[in-house]
Amino acid sequence: MVSTRNPLNIGAAARAMANFGFPNLRVVAPYDVAFREARSAVGAAPLLQSAVEFATVAEAVGDCHLVVGTTSVGHRGLQHPLRRLEHGARLILRSLQKAPVALLFGSEKFGLSNEELSHCHWLMRIPTVDAGLSMNLGQAVALCLYELARDPKAVTARPGKIHSATAGETEQITSMLWETLQHSGYVNPVTAASTEEKVRRLVRRLEIAGRDAPVLMGMLRQILWKVKDSN
Amino acid sequence: MVSTRNPLNIGAAARAMANFGFPNLRVVAPYDVAFREARSAVGAAPLLQSAVEFATVAEAVGDCHLVVGTTSVGHRGLQHPLRRLEHGARLILRSLQKAPVALLFGSEKFGLSNEELSHCHWLMRIPTVDAGLSMNLGQAVALCLYELARDPKAVTARPGKIHSATAGETEQITSMLWETLQHSGYVNPVTAASTEEKVRRLVRRLEIAGRDAPVLMGMLRQILWKVKDSN
Repeated sequence: MVSTRNPLNIGAAARAMANFGFPNLRVVAPYDVAFREARSAVGAAPLLQSAVEFATVAEAVGDCHLVVGTTSVGHRGLQHPLRRLEHGARLILRSLQKAPVALLFGSEKFGLSNEELSHCHWLMRIPTVDAGLSMNLGQAVALCLYELARDPKAVTARPGKIHSATAGETEQITSMLWETLQHSGYVNPVTAASTEEKVRRLVRRLEIAGRDAPVLMGMLRQILWKVKDSN
Repeated sequence: MVSTRNPLNIGAAARAMANFGFPNLRVVAPYDVAFREARSAVGAAPLLQSAVEFATVAEAVGDCHLVVGTTSVGHRGLQHPLRRLEHGARLILRSLQKAPVALLFGSEKFGLSNEELSHCHWLMRIPTVDAGLSMNLGQAVALCLYELARDPKAVTARPGKIHSATAGETEQITSMLWETLQHSGYVNPVTAASTEEKVRRLVRRLEIAGRDAPVLMGMLRQILWKVKDSN
């Protein structure tokens, strides 16, 4: 983070780094008061305590094999290849397997200066709908790190936590509901067979969870008792 | 946003919505002072001005066909299917093609209450490395909306802004470099042919940008003049 002025932003960036597993925060020429304030804030991430301070971008990125600048674009003629976050992150991940990579964020007000940009191999932008709209620095850091930590395989993953009711339980619920409907006068005897099938399909579409099955059966049992009783 | 207390968070959420093209902000039982403060802030998004206020979650999500809660998990026994953001966002996008979807964010301090969660069809979590680490509300909103607006096709996109030097320019640079190397005594006459090929390949690997070609040629012309002169 270069020339950051707002302690809340430094804190938010550090928190996002901890959240997504990036341990090395380097600050270049921070606004001293802001940096001290962020460091001493209640609940400051250990990551912020171990942040290293540098006077220049050149020193801060000295050991990195790839230096990527972040920009909101639009405001100056860029001398660098500009990549969308989704694409840039893949290239960064590939480089990270071999050597350290630096991701540069400029000051809240001015972004990265031309001198600072000249240390970058290429630039990355967050694909917002309107490049003119500025983005909060803490949010920008969170978005970049999220994209790096994002798991493409998780897109199609299924949650494993909810177990469905068994076919037996589902059928038991179906027949209790069916019996209830018959006792309630819902069923026309002429079309009873097709109605029963409709009910069966409807209950399947509910995809009842295992733990909900006994609850539903309890409800139906009670309702069934009531409708039978009132006949 | 339910029971939000910090005007900075409301403002940051509204900004992220504008950034990623989501126009409809609904607030449920906001902390009044915070909401008024966020609305009257300098540079408040028009989106914040048009935010609609509701007394309960039920009213706020009344016209939505899918209601998804956000959670940092870990802290209570969840009664809902829990999906990672990468996966949940795909399901939300699919639903959005047919009908409005509500994305619920709870208060900064307590998240969504059990009553509020009971309006949700399922829950979504941001895949941080440590579920115990809290995340800034404005960042959480930005991450969820970014994942929804994210373009998977952009992952493999090539930046189109930088035009390469032509093959002719590249070859001109190659021959100027080659001549310079010969005049500098770099080339062993016995292996000259293979060295020239190496130089040619090396120059191609540099992938020189169109606008850099004349600059490089100017540099080489000057160096060449110097090495010829000193022979």
